[in-house]
Parts: sequence; structure tokens; C-alpha cells
Amino acid sequence: MPRAATLLLTLGLAPLLFAQGDEIRTMLKSSEAAWNRGDLATFASDYEDAPTTTFVGREVTRGGVDAILARYKKGYPTPEALGTLTFSEIEVRPLGEGYALALGRFALKRTAAGGGDAAGRFTLVLKRTGKGWKIIHDHSS
Amino acid sequence: MPRAATLLLTLGLAPLLFAQGDEIRTMLKSSEAAWNRGDLATFASDYEDAPTTTFVGREVTRGGVDAILARYKKGYPTPEALGTLTFSEIEVRPLGEGYALALGRFALKRTAAGGGDAAGRFTLVLKRTGKGWKIIHDHSS
Repeated sequence: MPRAATLLLTLGLAPLLFAQGDEIRTMLKSSEAAWNRGDLATFASDYEDAPTTTFVGREVTRGGVDAILARYKKGYPTPEALGTLTFSEIEVRPLGEGYALALGRFALKRTAAGGGDAAGRFTLVLKRTGKGWKIIHDHSS
Repeated sequence: MPRAATLLLTLGLAPLLFAQGDEIRTMLKSSEAAWNRGDLATFASDYEDAPTTTFVGREVTRGGVDAILARYKKGYPTPEALGTLTFSEIEVRPLGEGYALALGRFALKRTAAGGGDAAGRFTLVLKRTGKGWKIIHDHSS
């Protein structure tokens, strides 16, 4: 087999995996921007709208976009409580073809009235759907 | 197509998915037993022995079985600190063919000298390997 063809076969999956990571990083960037303009509905729309979707924080939230949105609205009821969100240290790893794992750090810059600064780490499990990558499980602490 | 054949095709994946969940539940049961006899080496051997393995607790631990074992030995240095571990509310969800997500609750029954009782929730991402299911990411809080 010609060298070039072997190389193409060897590297065949690499661009696909990179593209996955890229798509998910772009999604998280948009998600951060949605939070920072107070648009929780858009933020929550990154979760899969399915009863199987789970969010583990202090408690477990189950359900689609409405359940996730209600959780965020309850936890962050005012612009001061939302503060300014920054994601960092993001790592994306493929889990087979249609799933991915994303890890990272979140930081909320807030006034004392908003609850003060907060930070932690998140684990997201994402699934490729007809509407793009969606979060099917979130564990944040 | 005969009805029975259609049914078999429709249900074709179900036994496989159930078997995955079963294998992982059995692994967690053995894992719990290993902890409770103070055998952290066996407990840590459920993690994939690879540099990509991650454990998110208060800090992020990276690496294979040795790194995970060192983390546990540091965090739980005595039989009193280990206490008695119980996993509950375990849910296993397939992520494509070779990966799975397991969620659950952990509780440590301990004396005051051991640090007192502790409890929390875990998210495990598991991969099917030649040596059975292995944890490639753990987020516990």
C-alpha cells in the first residue's frame, strides 16, 4: 500500500475526534455567553430534552430542559446570583462514536449580595443528536 | 416477516444492555467488599491503568492504578478512616457499545476518630476492556 494511503488510514479518525472536541468547546463557549447575558433558557437548551437527563449537584435533578431550567432558575434567581461565569481547563474525550466526556472548571465572579465568588469542577457526558451535541449527564461540585 | 422474528430483532439489544448493567453492578459490589476488608489495592484495580484516567474530587487525580491507589491511601490512611462503605441508588446507562455511565450514592459509616460518617454521590464513566469494565473517570462529591 502506498505510504500516503497508509498514513490516511492511520490518521483517518483523528480529524473526526478533533472535530468532536471542537464542536463541544464551541458549545461550552456559547453556553458561557448565554449565562453571562442572563439567558438561562438558552443555557438549559444544551441539555438533552429527555426524562433520562440527570444533573448531580447537591441533589439529583432529572428530566428534560424544563427540569434543568427550573433548577437553574431556583439556584440563580437574580442577575447578582448569576454573576459572571467562566469555564476553564476544559478537556474533551471521545467515548466511542456518538458520545463524549467533557471535564472542566467553572468559576462565578459575584458580588457579596449575589452570594460571593464560587468555583468548582464539572463532568459532562454528551451525546451526539440530530440537534448537535447535548448534555445527558452533568455532575458539578 | 414472522412476528417472532420481528420481536427478536426489536429486543435484540436488550439482553446485551442488561448484561452490561449487571456486570457493572457486580463490579461495584466487589469493589464495596474490597473497601470493607481494607483491600484498597483491589478497590483501585477497578480503574483503568492508563495515564488518561481521571478522578475529580476536591482535586483532580490523573493516572493509572498507582495514582488512584496513592490518592485513596492518602485520604483513608487507617481502618477507622476507611470505615464501612455502602453504595446505593446505583443506575447504569449504556453509552454506545463499549462505554457506560454509572451513578450512585456512597455512604461511609465511621467512628468520630475515623472522621465521622460521610456521604455523597458519584459519577463513573466506564469502558469495556480486555480485563472487563474499568473506570476511566470518576467524579465524587
